[in-house]
Amino acid sequence: MMKALVYGGPGQRAWQSKPKPIVRDPGDAVVRITTSTICGTDLHILKGDVPTVTPGRILGHEGVGVIEAVGPLVSTFRAGDRVLISCISACGICDVCRKGMYSHCRTGGWILGNTIDGTQAEYVRTPHADTSLYHLPPDADEEAMVMLSDILPTGFECGVLNGKVEPGDTVAIVGAGPIGLAALLTAQFYSPAAILMIDLDDNRLRVAEQFGATALINSSQGTAVDQVMALTGGAGVDVAIEAVGVPTTFDICQAILAPGGRLANVGVHGKPVELHLEKLWDRNIAITTRLVDTAAIPMLLKLVRSGKLQPAKLVTHRFAIGDIMKAYDTFGNAAQERALKVILTNP
Amino acid sequence: MMKALVYGGPGQRAWQSKPKPIVRDPGDAVVRITTSTICGTDLHILKGDVPTVTPGRILGHEGVGVIEAVGPLVSTFRAGDRVLISCISACGICDVCRKGMYSHCRTGGWILGNTIDGTQAEYVRTPHADTSLYHLPPDADEEAMVMLSDILPTGFECGVLNGKVEPGDTVAIVGAGPIGLAALLTAQFYSPAAILMIDLDDNRLRVAEQFGATALINSSQGTAVDQVMALTGGAGVDVAIEAVGVPTTFDICQAILAPGGRLANVGVHGKPVELHLEKLWDRNIAITTRLVDTAAIPMLLKLVRSGKLQPAKLVTHRFAIGDIMKAYDTFGNAAQERALKVILTNP
Amino acid sequence: MMKALVYGGPGQRAWQSKPKPIVRDPGDAVVRITTSTICGTDLHILKGDVPTVTPGRILGHEGVGVIEAVGPLVSTFRAGDRVLISCISACGICDVCRKGMYSHCRTGGWILGNTIDGTQAEYVRTPHADTSLYHLPPDADEEAMVMLSDILPTGFECGVLNGKVEPGDTVAIVGAGPIGLAALLTAQFYSPAAILMIDLDDNRLRVAEQFGATALINSSQGTAVDQVMALTGGAGVDVAIEAVGVPTTFDICQAILAPGGRLANVGVHGKPVELHLEKLWDRNIAITTRLVDTAAIPMLLKLVRSGKLQPAKLVTHRFAIGDIMKAYDTFGNAAQERALKVILTNP
Amino acid sequence: MMKALVYGGPGQRAWQSKPKPIVRDPGDAVVRITTSTICGTDLHILKGDVPTVTPGRILGHEGVGVIEAVGPLVSTFRAGDRVLISCISACGICDVCRKGMYSHCRTGGWILGNTIDGTQAEYVRTPHADTSLYHLPPDADEEAMVMLSDILPTGFECGVLNGKVEPGDTVAIVGAGPIGLAALLTAQFYSPAAILMIDLDDNRLRVAEQFGATALINSSQGTAVDQVMALTGGAGVDVAIEAVGVPTTFDICQAILAPGGRLANVGVHGKPVELHLEKLWDRNIAITTRLVDTAAIPMLLKLVRSGKLQPAKLVTHRFAIGDIMKAYDTFGNAAQERALKVILTNP
Repeated sequence: MMKALVYGGPGQRAWQSKPKPIVRDPGDAVVRITTSTICGTDLHILKGDVPTVTPGRILGHEGVGVIEAVGPLVSTFRAGDRVLISCISACGICDVCRKGMYSHCRTGGWILGNTIDGTQAEYVRTPHADTSLYHLPPDADEEAMVMLSDILPTGFECGVLNGKVEPGDTVAIVGAGPIGLAALLTAQFYSPAAILMIDLDDNRLRVAEQFGATALINSSQGTAVDQVMALTGGAGVDVAIEAVGVPTTFDICQAILAPGGRLANVGVHGKPVELHLEKLWDRNIAITTRLVDTAAIPMLLKLVRSGKLQPAKLVTHRFAIGDIMKAYDTFGNAAQERALKVILTNP
Repeated sequence: MMKALVYGGPGQRAWQSKPKPIVRDPGDAVVRITTSTICGTDLHILKGDVPTVTPGRILGHEGVGVIEAVGPLVSTFRAGDRVLISCISACGICDVCRKGMYSHCRTGGWILGNTIDGTQAEYVRTPHADTSLYHLPPDADEEAMVMLSDILPTGFECGVLNGKVEPGDTVAIVGAGPIGLAALLTAQFYSPAAILMIDLDDNRLRVAEQFGATALINSSQGTAVDQVMALTGGAGVDVAIEAVGVPTTFDICQAILAPGGRLANVGVHGKPVELHLEKLWDRNIAITTRLVDTAAIPMLLKLVRSGKLQPAKLVTHRFAIGDIMKAYDTFGNAAQERALKVILTNP
Repeated sequence: MMKALVYGGPGQRAWQSKPKPIVRDPGDAVVRITTSTICGTDLHILKGDVPTVTPGRILGHEGVGVIEAVGPLVSTFRAGDRVLISCISACGICDVCRKGMYSHCRTGGWILGNTIDGTQAEYVRTPHADTSLYHLPPDADEEAMVMLSDILPTGFECGVLNGKVEPGDTVAIVGAGPIGLAALLTAQFYSPAAILMIDLDDNRLRVAEQFGATALINSSQGTAVDQVMALTGGAGVDVAIEAVGVPTTFDICQAILAPGGRLANVGVHGKPVELHLEKLWDRNIAITTRLVDTAAIPMLLKLVRSGKLQPAKLVTHRFAIGDIMKAYDTFGNAAQERALKVILTNP
Repeated sequence: MMKALVYGGPGQRAWQSKPKPIVRDPGDAVVRITTSTICGTDLHILKGDVPTVTPGRILGHEGVGVIEAVGPLVSTFRAGDRVLISCISACGICDVCRKGMYSHCRTGGWILGNTIDGTQAEYVRTPHADTSLYHLPPDADEEAMVMLSDILPTGFECGVLNGKVEPGDTVAIVGAGPIGLAALLTAQFYSPAAILMIDLDDNRLRVAEQFGATALINSSQGTAVDQVMALTGGAGVDVAIEAVGVPTTFDICQAILAPGGRLANVGVHGKPVELHLEKLWDRNIAITTRLVDTAAIPMLLKLVRSGKLQPAKLVTHRFAIGDIMKAYDTFGNAAQERALKVILTNP
């Protein structure tokens, strides 16, 4: 048996005993989790917003750990290897995996902590191990590395790569939570001239400033669009990154795009938005959506190793895995707690 | 004096005398129109839907002709040259022109037959002549060439290039009017495996079939989405090109995109659409809009010259310019008249 | 035991008995070959030009067949499946495979008929089966399909994709052998305005004309460069595809590039060439090399299925596999025999 | 009359009186030079290596100044405007300018200080002013700005953009002179993980280290290739930038490329190089050449304004324009003088 954070239906979670996972399919690995974290998506699940997650499910799709066992189909990992777990399980064989669109793998995608048991536990079974785990050096900073399971690839791929940030660009990021800050950190790989950070919370904006934002816009008065237009001399922005997932923030994004601009949606949306094609049809813009593929993990690993990216900046709180119920309380109350990412350790 | 088609307010048009234009700005050319045509946008103007067009305006933004006079700033054209007139006037100097986004030129863009007098006349003044006109060989087929003023670049740039059509792709085009057919003709430059044409009108679909569509879908029963999904084995399409400009057709497009798909909007929209981000946020899609830049005219000229593109296929009716009132009647009643593009000649 | 074409050292080949292969590694498949062919590279090997091939090796890296057995690691194929064999074996897991650069797979690449036994045999063992074989429909035209093992992906990826052929371009292809013709067939996916075919042999040029070349240049008099410049009005070409592999043909390519042009090398070179940087340093050109990755096989399969590509055009001769010695004689004497690709069948 | 640096044939230069230029063509501007500099190309000219430059020519193609007069065709500049002069004169109208390949403009390109009189003078005539000059703010740092005439766009466009530097890449730059250092500064826009700087001179390498190089390699012992391979664990580099222009340095570049690598040639070559296609034909590499187009000047201006780029770092010496003969002595003896760029002022 082992302990795990189990979803019990809307509003219900418990740290309880569950059977320790075993290799079930030949491509599986079983990983002893040493470091994990909580994602905003886990809070969505707990609200009952993600119908694919059923009661009894172990949550969590981020983690670093040590391999306990592998199935006979696994060729590049063995017991004892230290690994990063991608939030996306990818077979590497199907047509969409061949295009690098791992999030839509025919037999994988986002399944951990969703349709199969996840990483907020002492052990996890990870399918398609060869193409869903990454080797870590023995001396890797696990707090930094666990940020590469989901949040940094998400900000980077869905926000920065889809937004095609280029040197000299003016970028606006709407939402200074962990995802928006991940986009902020990784947008700087491409040297934009200005990064405007937009949020309702001055604390988060101050963090954004420390992380490299060049202008801070508090949107609580409903004047974000006006402020952006004033700051850009009426031109608007080259790239708008939506990192919240509600109609109001999407509206800000579509209103501030310069002709030729890119709107990269990162937020998880629960309802439709009104797209103002009557204003945008002739503006030469692009709007993109994406579920993170984590195809950028190898690149991000190189950037962490070279010191160009310091993901541990996102960590504000640390808990032993046994205190995960408290960690959820803290993370669920992020504004007051000034929480970004909380680390769960199981040394 | 000369004769011209003059807008008189919603529902009002007349073929009447107007002063012959002269060179006003040093970059202007005055062109004697020898071939022109009517665009769907002209019908929108006549409905009163385009507020920038005021009574008294000469309509038309497509044309071929012979230069009468040029201003002192014009360096590459002279009187007597046969030219194609782009629907977009571009200075070639401003920051957006330097990026090839001529449609948003700081001192140009779509102005002909909109904010300045247009081409449905015996003569027209064309600003920024050096970067808005194209040399034609003396033996050019003017009927074919006038299709390069607007409709073919529009279908190609806004639909095919923005949709990133690739060899082997499955493409759906919603709307088999002239714009949709222009997208159909030019999508074939990239050898898609299948082109599904969707329209309410069987006559137009039959034309589409002759133009290369591989499947025809009549959407009048509201089952277009189901038909596309059935034809693609449930996979959806790689590229959906919206060539109508109303919410219903946009809805078809957003419902049939495969993961990783591109929705290229070409239609002119008069009101917002509902974008189903609650379904699309994780689908790795891109939605694009564009006002034609006509940056592709040089490429299209080469393709016409080599026989790879036969734009004259789009021509269904021919009138002397003096019969333009009748030509409008025909074009305004396109379904019954089975009209695509109508040619106006002034030999 | 089975029969196979065995390399015996320079100039030596024999159709002889060899042990039937078995599954050795867990990712292997054993395929009964039903259709195979001979590649120009096989002739190079027989000249002793490929030192990685040692005596005793079964040649051949192209084939279609039926799976006899699979190892425990193979998840998407089973005995009885009809498959296309890629000339490139790819693990799908290593860093270069993740980028789609299968030709440089850390544990694969071009190994069939090179460092392990190949496909000119009754049976072949194919490593990394899941990511190196492709499902074929039961009614597939095997003659067409076997062209997708190597020659068509090579012409397409190394020539057309690397050359970035675009609609309206002027393309020159130097060498009208099977590889040059494969580039010719697939360049047409992108609708170039002109394709100039250059070769020493008028017979081959006539074939090129039937395959879509728009101009034919016999280079036997050493005037190919002058002819290209004359045909292009002194402008040179947008894309030059080198499909031979000797300094003379590379020289033609570097001499005919327009500013901004792309030189895509496909030929296998045995010695250095002189690159005229003193003329080219300021010409904004790109020169590319590539070992085929066969990443385009899925796209090519779609194009064959849709009728846009007819690879069987390349087939000129057919032999039963037992007559492979005769087939080599014919293919080795291609000019006189007017041979392009020879098919070997084992029904 | 005015004073200017006049080429008198190989080895001959003089600061002498020349007629003050006037507007000759309607697109011309006459600019009073306030800041200029000397380029390595000027030294090549003085050696007699550039046959297009004839005795009597005023040298120099870099400069900042104030407009004195403009021709009637100039629409965006007027007397009194402070401007940056691009080393490339571009009409903005011809087919190659439309593609942004200004260096090959049909009536321009690199002509200043080459086929027409240049900027090392009190005044210069600049053709195609509208598309060859850039507005500067009144408070612009002219020393920084004059680096944008040629050297920074050259390093960036020919080296970094052509080399497709990406986050996490390993980049080698061969040559730590001003051009190589310009590539080094601008490569960092894309956050490579490592930049290896290779030169014969330890002083220059130390400067490179201050500018951001992560490894320094002195190539004077002929072991540069071995050192690069050792530093990259045998993998080679993703991007090699050649910033010298001789066979030896090109050889280093072609020997250190990883499969899939890009070799971006920046150096001006006087003779052919041996290209080892017998080793490279299957390595999936690209080799590019380019004469700077200066299309990136607007982007670079934004990056200077935002503080992301500090071009004045390249300035090591300052002279009044009247002391230009001394400035040439210093720059011509760059190694001993530890000279990078020398500034010439004419306040």
